[in-house]
Amino acid sequence: MKSPLISLLLAGSLVAPVWADRASTEPIQPIEPHEVTEPEKVELGKKLFFEPRLSASGFISCNSCHNLSRGGSDNLPTSIGHNWQEGPINSPTVLNSSMSVAQFWDGRAADLREQAGGPIANPMEMAFSHLLTIDVLQSIPEYRQMFADIYGTEKIDIDQVTDAIAAFEETLVTPNSRFDQWLKGDDDALTANELAGYETFKSIGCTACHNGPAAGGTSFQRMGVVEPYVTDNPAEGRVAITGEDADRFNFKVPTLRNVELTYPYFHDGAYWELEKVVDVMARLQLGRKLSDEDINNMTAFLKTLTGDQPDFILPNLPPSTNDTPRPRPFD
Amino acid sequence: MKSPLISLLLAGSLVAPVWADRASTEPIQPIEPHEVTEPEKVELGKKLFFEPRLSASGFISCNSCHNLSRGGSDNLPTSIGHNWQEGPINSPTVLNSSMSVAQFWDGRAADLREQAGGPIANPMEMAFSHLLTIDVLQSIPEYRQMFADIYGTEKIDIDQVTDAIAAFEETLVTPNSRFDQWLKGDDDALTANELAGYETFKSIGCTACHNGPAAGGTSFQRMGVVEPYVTDNPAEGRVAITGEDADRFNFKVPTLRNVELTYPYFHDGAYWELEKVVDVMARLQLGRKLSDEDINNMTAFLKTLTGDQPDFILPNLPPSTNDTPRPRPFD
Repeated sequence: MKSPLISLLLAGSLVAPVWADRASTEPIQPIEPHEVTEPEKVELGKKLFFEPRLSASGFISCNSCHNLSRGGSDNLPTSIGHNWQEGPINSPTVLNSSMSVAQFWDGRAADLREQAGGPIANPMEMAFSHLLTIDVLQSIPEYRQMFADIYGTEKIDIDQVTDAIAAFEETLVTPNSRFDQWLKGDDDALTANELAGYETFKSIGCTACHNGPAAGGTSFQRMGVVEPYVTDNPAEGRVAITGEDADRFNFKVPTLRNVELTYPYFHDGAYWELEKVVDVMARLQLGRKLSDEDINNMTAFLKTLTGDQPDFILPNLPPSTNDTPRPRPFD
Repeated sequence: MKSPLISLLLAGSLVAPVWADRASTEPIQPIEPHEVTEPEKVELGKKLFFEPRLSASGFISCNSCHNLSRGGSDNLPTSIGHNWQEGPINSPTVLNSSMSVAQFWDGRAADLREQAGGPIANPMEMAFSHLLTIDVLQSIPEYRQMFADIYGTEKIDIDQVTDAIAAFEETLVTPNSRFDQWLKGDDDALTANELAGYETFKSIGCTACHNGPAAGGTSFQRMGVVEPYVTDNPAEGRVAITGEDADRFNFKVPTLRNVELTYPYFHDGAYWELEKVVDVMARLQLGRKLSDEDINNMTAFLKTLTGDQPDFILPNLPPSTNDTPRPRPFD
């Protein structure tokens, strides 16, 4: 018979397995739940994220293109903006975006705060202005009160707006995927095929770029290393920001977290099927022609990266007042 | 000293006041919470209500124009439809819509089930087809499973889709407004001004049309009884359905529940301020020119009709598969 101490240790190992080892040796780390330190700010940011009055039309909110019911994306090749304008590039998911080295495909915003102001004033997207945004919010007593409670002043400014939106976005992490359960030591969390797919994913070199907790977002890389990527999308990537010719067609490596939910793929949204994406990336980036079995296994692995999705009460937005600037959807 | 029995009766009357009297004698009755009898169907309907894949673009859902963060409306004069088309009429709130005698301003749908199929296939709204809707849903295993669990068949049809959406919409009642608290006997729930506004509301005859639990929705009435309503909106109301000349400019009386949230007002969405709406309605429908005091009191009363807003977790939508028909936002 085992001693009680050994039984206890064995039982303990079942509930708290040796996860530290895998997490420290694998190129992808588990996503940890976000700890909210400023709940009021997060609540305000959530309202603002769903707030169509941050757009000229009164119709488009952050959630229109980063739909939290749909993996934080709009599942369109490129987005629909003000007046149904066709956006220039695929909307990246907002989920786990706080882990990115920078924001936008070309990294033109340093962080979520800087990013959040962009679409509001972009004439192709929400087509509003920061000034009008403030006029709208300042005209609504419930918003005035929330901003005053958080920022200690009755005078709302755009930095507070983007700060609150970013605070909410920072909560949008997706822990507890099956892959993370495996990383934390649950050997049964992945099937043999999924594990084989992950082994291929590592062995052919995908993790050179898709690494870190978000399995991406840590660097800018050239799209089309071995073979060029053929697209009619005119985006040139990071060169637009740095002016460096070496940055042409360099894009931020997208996160693979929740990739099952964030179709279509690539900066032009040209590919809808994960199997094809795996094939294209292996060929263009790594010069590898994968077998169907490898492709299927890697696709199966990628689908284990779907984590806990946002889980919150749909926010209620306070009504406009007679002083609130009115939306102009058809001007 | 009072006898223990009298003390008990007096105490009892404080917790359970004589609400039955007011509710039975007043022209507006309290809204009762909805009792969910089929929670799985309601959950499915909620997903479908937020489902942009019921539109040709993959961008517009029921919630786009009946935004549950905004009193079940889009707060636009008329709605933005597929390809940014300008809708012909103001989107009515979906809140408490189950209490209406019929659906749409002209009552062309008998009930919520019949209504729900309309916007999906309307080329001005979601611009999809019922056939494609079924193709989309049938291609997604999670939807197939939900429909099978509820309707007992693997074969999804449009009647199931609208049935589930309607089941969710039936939950969207807004009990517990301050006015309802007053109706149920809480004398302190309304201020003196609000109560004076309600008295005027009744005495000048508004309750002839705005009655029942929803304070409207019980009948079709002419817009412009005493004076004509001037608008450039071409809608002619119920005559379009009945062909009866007597029904020209007859519209379904809108609910006044949550009217504070459902601006702008009237079938053309031409008025944004409740004070002006009160003035116009009194003049055109009742031949009364109200004092500013009356207008302000009635506006204050109307704002007491804001009840508990929808309170649920934002739904997660299951991902498309390789077989799912793709959205065509720019075709």
